[in-house]
Amino acid sequence: MAGLNVRSVLVTGSNRGIGLELVKQLLGKSNPPQWVFATCRDPEGARGQELRNLVSKHPNLVMVKLDAVNPASIEEATWRVEEQLDGSGLNLVINNAGIFSDVSLATVDSEEMLGAYKTNVVGPMLVGQAFLPLLKKAAQGSSQKGLSCSKAAIVNISSVLGSIERVPETFFKPVISYRCSKAALNMLTRCQALSYAEDGILCAAVHPGWVQTDMGTQEPPVSLLTSEFPGLLQADLPVDESVRGILTVLPTLSEKHSGSFWSWAGETIPW
Amino acid sequence: MAGLNVRSVLVTGSNRGIGLELVKQLLGKSNPPQWVFATCRDPEGARGQELRNLVSKHPNLVMVKLDAVNPASIEEATWRVEEQLDGSGLNLVINNAGIFSDVSLATVDSEEMLGAYKTNVVGPMLVGQAFLPLLKKAAQGSSQKGLSCSKAAIVNISSVLGSIERVPETFFKPVISYRCSKAALNMLTRCQALSYAEDGILCAAVHPGWVQTDMGTQEPPVSLLTSEFPGLLQADLPVDESVRGILTVLPTLSEKHSGSFWSWAGETIPW
Repeated sequence: MAGLNVRSVLVTGSNRGIGLELVKQLLGKSNPPQWVFATCRDPEGARGQELRNLVSKHPNLVMVKLDAVNPASIEEATWRVEEQLDGSGLNLVINNAGIFSDVSLATVDSEEMLGAYKTNVVGPMLVGQAFLPLLKKAAQGSSQKGLSCSKAAIVNISSVLGSIERVPETFFKPVISYRCSKAALNMLTRCQALSYAEDGILCAAVHPGWVQTDMGTQEPPVSLLTSEFPGLLQADLPVDESVRGILTVLPTLSEKHSGSFWSWAGETIPW
Repeated sequence: MAGLNVRSVLVTGSNRGIGLELVKQLLGKSNPPQWVFATCRDPEGARGQELRNLVSKHPNLVMVKLDAVNPASIEEATWRVEEQLDGSGLNLVINNAGIFSDVSLATVDSEEMLGAYKTNVVGPMLVGQAFLPLLKKAAQGSSQKGLSCSKAAIVNISSVLGSIERVPETFFKPVISYRCSKAALNMLTRCQALSYAEDGILCAAVHPGWVQTDMGTQEPPVSLLTSEFPGLLQADLPVDESVRGILTVLPTLSEKHSGSFWSWAGETIPW
């Protein structure tokens, strides 16, 4: 595969961590997208500074205000994106915005569970629904056969911690609210894949690795690094390596991979 | 196995459908529990009539008011149960209360997603947390080795529709909010199994079959009945047959099965 070749891409939660790095690497490609839409909740705030610096250097980067738990905010964002695209469709939506909280079954409560679900599952669902017309338009406007991330796709940033199968190996970090939300996000991804296949849209879930970002994850114990899944749980994975991996995996996905769950390193992950 | 041999059991959402039938069959055993706690949101209301009729015939049946999405209501229920148990522990909690809504990705919204999650995932989590001391007491008071449903257990009524692996075969019924919640409930079950193992508590998820109850499920298409999973998707499964199956499966579960997912017919279901 020749690498990701998208005309337009939107990344949520892009003012920091994996989202920011996705934006940077997309802009730095030898064939950069015509439009990179970088969304965050508060583009004017202090946390949007890095993105604003990038905007001043890249005329193809558009910052868009989008709060993924607020349907009205999402709708406004679609208007902004549609206006910029000027009649074209949107090729790729990367649902990266997410929250993480270090709670166990002994400490988690209702509010924590619902908050994680709202941001990590309901948000990606609403964003997918809202941008569906623009994704459809991209699929319809493409001459490519089958499905691909370069044509029209929704990529949900999930986590190996959402793999129900792998819980026993990853439970050194219980993070109940996060795990439950990511298992549900994987279910959503598979439902999106089946629901949107007829519209020509590929949907996949991606585990970005054990990335050290300001989401505040901590390293897994050293014992796990020699486990059978070193790639999945590699500690201290630099964010640029994770994102390089993700952007290498995405263009390899085709129709038969829609609704599946991949690691940044290109391994499929069991549900 | 000699069948389920519990001294005390609590069933949530027990005023109708599978919950009511669980209560009836537990009471009808040749060795019935000393106490069956049948919880519902409104024991005094019209929907509690069948349970009230049972109470008049069975002195070992105790109706308890419990709204599984309300922590204060759950706490009050634990007091009532603890008082009745008079120093003994509680052997078995069956988280049966759940909601089902016939929505697709085209129609589901934020409120629907959060409502399903609250009842189908957060509820069972809160109930497990609240009854943990009584479950621990049952485990500590038992002379049985290992884990079993007769000693101390949490059983979560899940659904094959929550199997991410099986989505392609079951998607004739998209029910997005229900599916996402049940996938998360399966994750919760596995986390409960790991978290509560040291307390001597077994945790498992059970698919009750395609039961015709007033939750309003409809039959799967005939084509599926000849599929490779006839047991999982058998249409029109009578509720008494489903519950007989569940009560046959539970006593077969041991330590090695904690954190797994079973059908009423005794098949394991992939995540």
